Amino acid sequence: MKLSNRILDMQFSPIRKLAPYATEAKKRGTKVYHLNIGQPDVLTPDPFFKAIANFKEDVLKYTESQGMDALQESFIEYYKKWGTEFTKDQLYITNGGSEAIMLVFQAICDAGDEIVVPEPFYTNYTGFAQIAGAKTVPFLTKAEEGFHLPSKEEIVSKISEKTKAIMISNPGNPTGVVYTKEELRMLGDIVKEHDLFLIADEVYREFVYDGLQYTSTLTMTDILDRLIVVDSISKRYSACGARIGLVASKNKDLMFNIMKLCQTRLCVPTVEQIGAAALKDTPESYFTETRAEYQRRRDIMMEGLENIPGVICKKPTGAFYIVAKLPVEDAEDFAKYLLTDFSHDGKTVMVAPAGGFYGTPGRGKDEIRLSYCLNCESLKDAMNLLKIAIEEYKKTH
Amino acid sequence: MKLSNRILDMQFSPIRKLAPYATEAKKRGTKVYHLNIGQPDVLTPDPFFKAIANFKEDVLKYTESQGMDALQESFIEYYKKWGTEFTKDQLYITNGGSEAIMLVFQAICDAGDEIVVPEPFYTNYTGFAQIAGAKTVPFLTKAEEGFHLPSKEEIVSKISEKTKAIMISNPGNPTGVVYTKEELRMLGDIVKEHDLFLIADEVYREFVYDGLQYTSTLTMTDILDRLIVVDSISKRYSACGARIGLVASKNKDLMFNIMKLCQTRLCVPTVEQIGAAALKDTPESYFTETRAEYQRRRDIMMEGLENIPGVICKKPTGAFYIVAKLPVEDAEDFAKYLLTDFSHDGKTVMVAPAGGFYGTPGRGKDEIRLSYCLNCESLKDAMNLLKIAIEEYKKTH
Ligand SMILES: Cc1ncc(COP(=O)(O)O)c(C=O)c1O
Ligand SMILES: Cc1ncc(COP(=O)(O)O)c(C=O)c1O
Repeated sequence: MKLSNRILDMQFSPIRKLAPYATEAKKRGTKVYHLNIGQPDVLTPDPFFKAIANFKEDVLKYTESQGMDALQESFIEYYKKWGTEFTKDQLYITNGGSEAIMLVFQAICDAGDEIVVPEPFYTNYTGFAQIAGAKTVPFLTKAEEGFHLPSKEEIVSKISEKTKAIMISNPGNPTGVVYTKEELRMLGDIVKEHDLFLIADEVYREFVYDGLQYTSTLTMTDILDRLIVVDSISKRYSACGARIGLVASKNKDLMFNIMKLCQTRLCVPTVEQIGAAALKDTPESYFTETRAEYQRRRDIMMEGLENIPGVICKKPTGAFYIVAKLPVEDAEDFAKYLLTDFSHDGKTVMVAPAGGFYGTPGRGKDEIRLSYCLNCESLKDAMNLLKIAIEEYKKTH
Repeated sequence: MKLSNRILDMQFSPIRKLAPYATEAKKRGTKVYHLNIGQPDVLTPDPFFKAIANFKEDVLKYTESQGMDALQESFIEYYKKWGTEFTKDQLYITNGGSEAIMLVFQAICDAGDEIVVPEPFYTNYTGFAQIAGAKTVPFLTKAEEGFHLPSKEEIVSKISEKTKAIMISNPGNPTGVVYTKEELRMLGDIVKEHDLFLIADEVYREFVYDGLQYTSTLTMTDILDRLIVVDSISKRYSACGARIGLVASKNKDLMFNIMKLCQTRLCVPTVEQIGAAALKDTPESYFTETRAEYQRRRDIMMEGLENIPGVICKKPTGAFYIVAKLPVEDAEDFAKYLLTDFSHDGKTVMVAPAGGFYGTPGRGKDEIRLSYCLNCESLKDAMNLLKIAIEEYKKTH
């Protein structure tokens, strides 16, 4: 009656690890600003709620395994705006981007296979890989370089016989990096030269700042047969709880076979699909406003970080995260200190130690990830608290 | 750029395989009675729709990975009625029973491990096992014996070093069998003697006829530490589209570790959880009425089958399926014939060849699975059509 090695090797969410200390702090009456989670606070567009309020059927039935027609179609329309034409057999609805990634790993990896990723990266990639019996093989990107890609040689040096794909998140969680056209082209060349898949997690596609033009991997028309795109409405429409995502690819063989996985789990929830399909009625202004708001927040957070002596980080241009190197030795210890020992005017902040976002043990030990899913005023206050906390912490450590 | 052996080895849903022929038949104007699918036609209780119609939040957030408090609590209440006390760390909400089974297999199986199951069985068990790198190892149960369990020796003979669990569906899909207390006790003894888990898929728990008393595996208090229960609201409340299920176990180590899998996929959809939590307000009469209706249908179907010379099957006492041996050589060919060649008064029936429900190649070749998710009148008509079709088919085959 033993559990699988797979599950014993897996880790608990490093982001949630500090949660008990936060609960304790709150019990003591301390206000905790959450800079540790990627749960947007932006309003979910009304069409979602309208659609579900009007939903009434006699029987709540299973839907098609690939997703409801209307939802598939709304995504096909969406991608047209990005210049890509998908058909219904190239785009399946999934339980969030999370399931999309799981399906892809299960479809391309057997036990022992490898997925090459730039680190730091979204931690759950490792969990998804482990579920498929595979593992993530990281190459390093650095705070000093704004987490942009290293040289082609460095990336290629991580490719082995076992490598099935290179995977990126663009814009990046946790780094906020937005890759340039040239960086993407380099990845496109590598996957062609080494006969690999390129998995592009573009769930933060809309979150790009400073008027920057976002380049999707879908613009590389010469690698479309080896490109797999993972997407989600979680962040785009601030609809994390809907658990609606998708996997899209022009690789026929892949999509044909992924259908087996989709059929096995039957389908994605009906009501959330109804709500998600209605999101196509969201006005364009929603995105411009959201983008402007996040950019303001990023600026506040950056200003706050620049005000703290010894902090190293470059201004990221996407998503809603910043990874910063702190002038402390052990960021995890500091993150815990924030919740257990520190408070100022009855307030403190919660941050995510970045170590958990690295695949290589020991890396990122002095880094934290901050997310700016918090209104501007709270954010200013939180950054001020962080500055004071670092000063206090350094006195005793 | 090769796909995984895992996915290449997997099969498409055998139930959906004939779908294109049904579409063709409908295009020709033929009415098709669907006896092939397990999609109940019973009304979904109103509380579900009321709850979601009233649902409005500013931000549709991620919920807890183990499920929303209110939903966990409603299931804990539900199980009390069945005589079992669960706590919140013993019962996690999943994306349907389907995900519950996947999580369990991933938690207990590594590549090459085995799950022993009575065949015929719910086909997706094999898919779920393959996803975890494992496989199902079947032992035979027979139409002539109403698909009750064989001797202890026969079951034990399938256990190897690689066996991690015995899994049953009780009541059974596709067989409709309801195991006796003694049969369950035998399984309980086997898993104790061989140090295995017992996985009990009890999603049809409420669907038991003829006034029979249902015995849950949960009544075997001496094996609670090795018992894993899979459950779902799909059939119980005719709410398949909600994709709400659960995994429950008193094995601390298992549930502690399964939380890693739950965290990796973040959470289950919010709106469907809200709807599902409200289902506790469904009046008890809903079940009595549903049960009575299904029993009537089962009787109509059995009568229909008994009227067809050469058909072998015993009256099942649970779920809403019947597996019947037909006087034909190749039930798959016959099922196709029903859709491509046969029609009577512009109508035909669609059935599921039972071969797909067997793990052993060649078995069940002359059997079909019928589901009685159809009103009594249609069912009578459908059974009459089936009788005529078999007569016609036998003339030419
Ligand atoms: C980079 C990235 N990919 C995928 C996901 C999964 O999101 P979801 O499953 O909610 O679509 C997240 C969530 O935070 C993410 O940050
Ligand atoms: C025996 C059995 N188990 C599990 C399931 C999965 O159901 P769901 O994922 O809808 O809860 C089904 C569905 O038909 C089933 O018949």
